[in-house]
Amino acid sequence: MTLIRADEALLARLMEEQAACAATADGGVNRPALTAGDRVARDWLRARFDALGMRTLVDGVGNMLGCLEWAGPGAPWIMTGSHLDSQPNGGRFDGAYGVVAGLTAAAALKEAVAEGRLKPRANLAVCNWTNEEGARFQPSLIGSSVYIGGMPLQEALAVKDAEGISVGAALDAIGYRGAAVLPLPAAFVEMHVECAPDLEQDGLRMGPFTRYWGATKIRVRMTGLQAHTGPTPMERRRDALLGAAYLIADLKELCAEAPDTLHTSVGRIEAYPNSPNSVVSEATMWVELRSPAQDVLIWAEERFNRALETAAQRSGTIGRTLHVECRKAGVFDAQLCNRVEAAMAAEGIAGRHLSTIAAHDAIRLAEICPSIVVAVRSIGGICHNAAEYSTPEDLAAGAQVLVRVLSELVASPRP
Amino acid sequence: MTLIRADEALLARLMEEQAACAATADGGVNRPALTAGDRVARDWLRARFDALGMRTLVDGVGNMLGCLEWAGPGAPWIMTGSHLDSQPNGGRFDGAYGVVAGLTAAAALKEAVAEGRLKPRANLAVCNWTNEEGARFQPSLIGSSVYIGGMPLQEALAVKDAEGISVGAALDAIGYRGAAVLPLPAAFVEMHVECAPDLEQDGLRMGPFTRYWGATKIRVRMTGLQAHTGPTPMERRRDALLGAAYLIADLKELCAEAPDTLHTSVGRIEAYPNSPNSVVSEATMWVELRSPAQDVLIWAEERFNRALETAAQRSGTIGRTLHVECRKAGVFDAQLCNRVEAAMAAEGIAGRHLSTIAAHDAIRLAEICPSIVVAVRSIGGICHNAAEYSTPEDLAAGAQVLVRVLSELVASPRP
Repeated sequence: MTLIRADEALLARLMEEQAACAATADGGVNRPALTAGDRVARDWLRARFDALGMRTLVDGVGNMLGCLEWAGPGAPWIMTGSHLDSQPNGGRFDGAYGVVAGLTAAAALKEAVAEGRLKPRANLAVCNWTNEEGARFQPSLIGSSVYIGGMPLQEALAVKDAEGISVGAALDAIGYRGAAVLPLPAAFVEMHVECAPDLEQDGLRMGPFTRYWGATKIRVRMTGLQAHTGPTPMERRRDALLGAAYLIADLKELCAEAPDTLHTSVGRIEAYPNSPNSVVSEATMWVELRSPAQDVLIWAEERFNRALETAAQRSGTIGRTLHVECRKAGVFDAQLCNRVEAAMAAEGIAGRHLSTIAAHDAIRLAEICPSIVVAVRSIGGICHNAAEYSTPEDLAAGAQVLVRVLSELVASPRP
Repeated sequence: MTLIRADEALLARLMEEQAACAATADGGVNRPALTAGDRVARDWLRARFDALGMRTLVDGVGNMLGCLEWAGPGAPWIMTGSHLDSQPNGGRFDGAYGVVAGLTAAAALKEAVAEGRLKPRANLAVCNWTNEEGARFQPSLIGSSVYIGGMPLQEALAVKDAEGISVGAALDAIGYRGAAVLPLPAAFVEMHVECAPDLEQDGLRMGPFTRYWGATKIRVRMTGLQAHTGPTPMERRRDALLGAAYLIADLKELCAEAPDTLHTSVGRIEAYPNSPNSVVSEATMWVELRSPAQDVLIWAEERFNRALETAAQRSGTIGRTLHVECRKAGVFDAQLCNRVEAAMAAEGIAGRHLSTIAAHDAIRLAEICPSIVVAVRSIGGICHNAAEYSTPEDLAAGAQVLVRVLSELVASPRP
């Protein structure tokens, strides 16, 4: 098998093209799942699939697959890709790079197959998972969760955003509720920017995530009493926003007790009635506890529950957990990891093993097939921000590693 | 002059009718200014004006006036009324009682004039001020502020709600942008539920507000850095919601240093991007400091500024005051107060002087004419809540006092 090369110019052009979809003034993109911005990116991807001669499949939750069925309907599938949705005012690399690297690799492999340099024994698919981010709709990873059978489709379609619009209605609105049955893969390889500063700090360009942190995501509500912010005596107030403030501050202290093994956050808050002159009667928060260690997660959740009780007592409100979602820490496929590192070595790229704190669709895919995420250096570790950046050279190096790994898998899908 | 009596049955019926406008399941009303709910109440009021033979005037900011011009175009005007807008899920008494008491009094006086028992030397108007509450649009008291010349009309029309809809657009949407030039009054008497527990605690039914507290209303923003809530190292985060939490908690402590002379609150917060897995980059808060003493307000604002700096430092964010609105404490008209107390005495109602912590349109009216607010007992002091309650007997007693005061003023407008 002669060496197949990723086309760096194609990669750069595709990165520019996708970044123009719902671009923001500060160089980011604004494509929360199933918004008009997401639709622009999806339409762009469908056109790219067409141009590459890939058949587009869309399933009931809007997952998009571009398929090269060159090994025939009975052959196994190798899958790559990531997601095109973004945070509100997010960056142009998170997710999108994995899709673009997949398109670039597919183009290279297709040429090699056409020229007889690669004999495919597996089909190849590039995917775009719906609502990886979980910004507009909670939970995150909805598309890949439905795909692997980890979440019922009807449950996913019924999830609503802050305005009460369901996933189903949003899919219909942008024309991406499909009916295709997607093939299941023999292996999944996801390229992604690192979203953390570790590679840059170590002077390295790339590395496979060998492990992923666990997460406990809690939706919690403080309930107080709506009252006038003027005449209501201070001692009679039951201020849900004050209770929320105590909880948020306590949650921050918790991290100091488990440095490096616990990340906590409250990224979303909804206050009601949210009128300047009414005491807040309901404050709902979306809390995250993340750790590589299950016992730390359990300890942190216990401490969270105590903090919730304290915050409620201090503010005269009631604290109630509405929903808890647990994702256990785990490991990615060791053999795929070895393949990635062999490909990196062949390209002369030094790397290291990494642990991902962020979730990726590959975590869900790992439940049904060998899966891996390969991280490419993020400058400054910046993520979920318009200032995300990875160099064109690093992106190209990542695409080349992907081409090596995919061409091996396509040629020899059964290890 | 023979005694003129308020019709208790009419009062009760009108209270029921207005409470049915945008009623909520829990017995409250949902009529934030210029919403569909407010429109229903406005349409109801216009029909009541028509039924009473009152000419309806609507000005450029949607203030509604029902006019009985029985003393002729050159005669002075005596004005009563309040507001029909409410907090989100607010109570059925706050504001509405003043409008309904005004309608009831107007009906009684009209009958007396028709029967020759009252010879009017002043005209009478019942008003409904736009956006007294300040729930949907900030600041509060927009309608009365424009009316007295304290706020330019264009500035008022440009004020936007949380969805970016302007007062002007909202007026157009509900058909209440008028063009009338409203007459200015020689005196303004506003009936209102107390919204505080003082009367009930003292076993009294009614009392004039002789003074009003001052208020400093501050819109403030913490600015951090949007980042991933997962991989971003805790020590690198600049979490605007954490900064907001510190500020809210500190503001609560401030009250303990000035018991009984300082009320503080944060009733509204807006977080951006407000996605569960992004660190909040902007948290905007609507802060209120209220006190009867100007020096306490100045001290509290200084302490607020220090708390803002501390919160910013602790969270690695930037705290910035976007807007400050100061309303000085003051007194209502002593002569009108005496008239009210004489009327109460004539009705055998014991009362006391009160101080209002809540704002009322009469505070703005006091800048152009003698003004007073007469408070009727609120059960439990509950306000800005669907559970607001005042007894029919107390409401009727208040209407009767209003009839006495208005009939005197209409008969002898110049004291």
